[in-house]
Amino acid sequence: MTTYDIVAIGNALVDVLSHEDDAFVERTGVERGAMTMVDATRSDEIYAEMGPATERSGGSAANTAAGVASFGGRAAYIGRVGDDTFGKVFTHDLRSIGVHFDSPVATDGTPTGRCLVVVTPDAQRTMHTFLGAANQLEPGAVDAALVADAQVTYIEGYLWDEPLTKEAIREAIAFAHSAGRKVALTLSDPFCVDRHRKEFLALVENEVDIVFANELEITMLYEVDDFDDALVKVRGHCEIAALTRGALGSVLATADEEHVIAAEPTTLVDTTGAGDLYSAGVLFGLTHGLDLATSGRIGSLAAAEVISHLGPRPEQSLRALAAPLLQV
Amino acid sequence: MTTYDIVAIGNALVDVLSHEDDAFVERTGVERGAMTMVDATRSDEIYAEMGPATERSGGSAANTAAGVASFGGRAAYIGRVGDDTFGKVFTHDLRSIGVHFDSPVATDGTPTGRCLVVVTPDAQRTMHTFLGAANQLEPGAVDAALVADAQVTYIEGYLWDEPLTKEAIREAIAFAHSAGRKVALTLSDPFCVDRHRKEFLALVENEVDIVFANELEITMLYEVDDFDDALVKVRGHCEIAALTRGALGSVLATADEEHVIAAEPTTLVDTTGAGDLYSAGVLFGLTHGLDLATSGRIGSLAAAEVISHLGPRPEQSLRALAAPLLQV
Repeated sequence: MTTYDIVAIGNALVDVLSHEDDAFVERTGVERGAMTMVDATRSDEIYAEMGPATERSGGSAANTAAGVASFGGRAAYIGRVGDDTFGKVFTHDLRSIGVHFDSPVATDGTPTGRCLVVVTPDAQRTMHTFLGAANQLEPGAVDAALVADAQVTYIEGYLWDEPLTKEAIREAIAFAHSAGRKVALTLSDPFCVDRHRKEFLALVENEVDIVFANELEITMLYEVDDFDDALVKVRGHCEIAALTRGALGSVLATADEEHVIAAEPTTLVDTTGAGDLYSAGVLFGLTHGLDLATSGRIGSLAAAEVISHLGPRPEQSLRALAAPLLQV
Repeated sequence: MTTYDIVAIGNALVDVLSHEDDAFVERTGVERGAMTMVDATRSDEIYAEMGPATERSGGSAANTAAGVASFGGRAAYIGRVGDDTFGKVFTHDLRSIGVHFDSPVATDGTPTGRCLVVVTPDAQRTMHTFLGAANQLEPGAVDAALVADAQVTYIEGYLWDEPLTKEAIREAIAFAHSAGRKVALTLSDPFCVDRHRKEFLALVENEVDIVFANELEITMLYEVDDFDDALVKVRGHCEIAALTRGALGSVLATADEEHVIAAEPTTLVDTTGAGDLYSAGVLFGLTHGLDLATSGRIGSLAAAEVISHLGPRPEQSLRALAAPLLQV
């Protein structure tokens, strides 16, 4: 019995969200719908162009941890914030929903990372991330005892962009495996997959027990055009694959099983956090002994909740929303 | 011809909003639905009790300035923020909607003020304000040329809680009048009225051209039980009275005219900013030559928009919403 269902490791970020028109995304020149890394100066430039914004705690894996907690699960988080207002906001928002978070803050004045999220009229989000202190998750920063005390260690693919952070994550994976725990990885972003394909392939094949990806990411990983081709490949590599397909729903597969899960109907406002909350539902289900299909349906419920409003974390109790499924 | 329709002067605050149950408000012990001043320590204590929150720029008069800008009006703002992240957020959000804001920031390390806004299931908001740098709006801080260059100087009653700020506002009123401009005052809060009744009465009778108040505030001002009794009194004191009555709508009155305006139907989510945005609509109308009744209807539209979502400022273009009224 572990203290935690999951420990999530990721880039600790505060989201700065605004609604903008399509021309805005064209002007900034970044890839629409993707996450682009920017430096502090570029972040300030883009922010200056954005309209009135809303600030909310974000960070992909942190959103997942918050989602697991909202289901009533026991979640912990590892990440680094700065010793500043956004760092306090990030910490407060995780702890107040019941996520264990006590990673040391940056002490050298580096600010908390932020993600400028531009939501276009089609509800798609385009993200510009200045990592700040999140970038300081280095070897030695991952608490081995905490990793050993969680059923699943959940890792963001985004972390692969920083060599030292990558080493920290390799340590975390080793801690998890030596304690007999599972490792889950989200591929995070198609461009992220493209940058780290070789390493991600090795991870999925050798280290990772549960892989989360959307259709673009998984086809990008295997360099195939067709989702079904990617599905065949990943089923041979990884114990569980949880693959999202937007409005088409998702597919959960093992070597022996395959479940196609419909998307939950909702009013689409902002896709920020959709994948993160899908992961939360699936991980909550799997760590609570639910079958794959039910875990997938819980993931769909959580994703539907988060895309029905602005911001990357649930506004309603996911436990209450999922109650009919949890009583089965 | 002035450069600005209005210059708003107020406490510059970032709102930290969360949904809480009624028991939360009982535990904190503050007056439900009202604004209570707290110090930094108490602010931190209440924040630690709050659930996951959303950060948005707020401040009563700043919300009004943002509303006027959203109507396509020309608005300026005077207030003080700290040299910190929330100060940058506050400044960005005003400027990005087109409000002129260049008041000097606090240079002594005092943080930007914040208002912890607890929204209960009935959509009522209970506010806990730590003024921080907002408290440093002192004599000499008000730009006389800016005040002279706006048709209306709009003042928060909340400013009366700080003696030095009060002096700064008296200066602003003198600047406005000597330039032949109008002065508008919002009574802000029934407890604020109770604290400063004598001064508010003198202001309304002698200095203020347009007074904004809700039913509780105006009856509290005149120490009468009945709204109609308060209405009779204020019509004899002030050129224009714009009085809101929640779901009952509002009344706009001069010595000669009286218009009862229905509330605009909407789905109530969070009453934060309702009065501020009503003021924005009325002020936009009056500074654009619209009659009292139309100005009131525009105020109702703006109030309805802001209470239909979390947060104190418009999320849709008020100009687009009000277009049918503006073409009459």
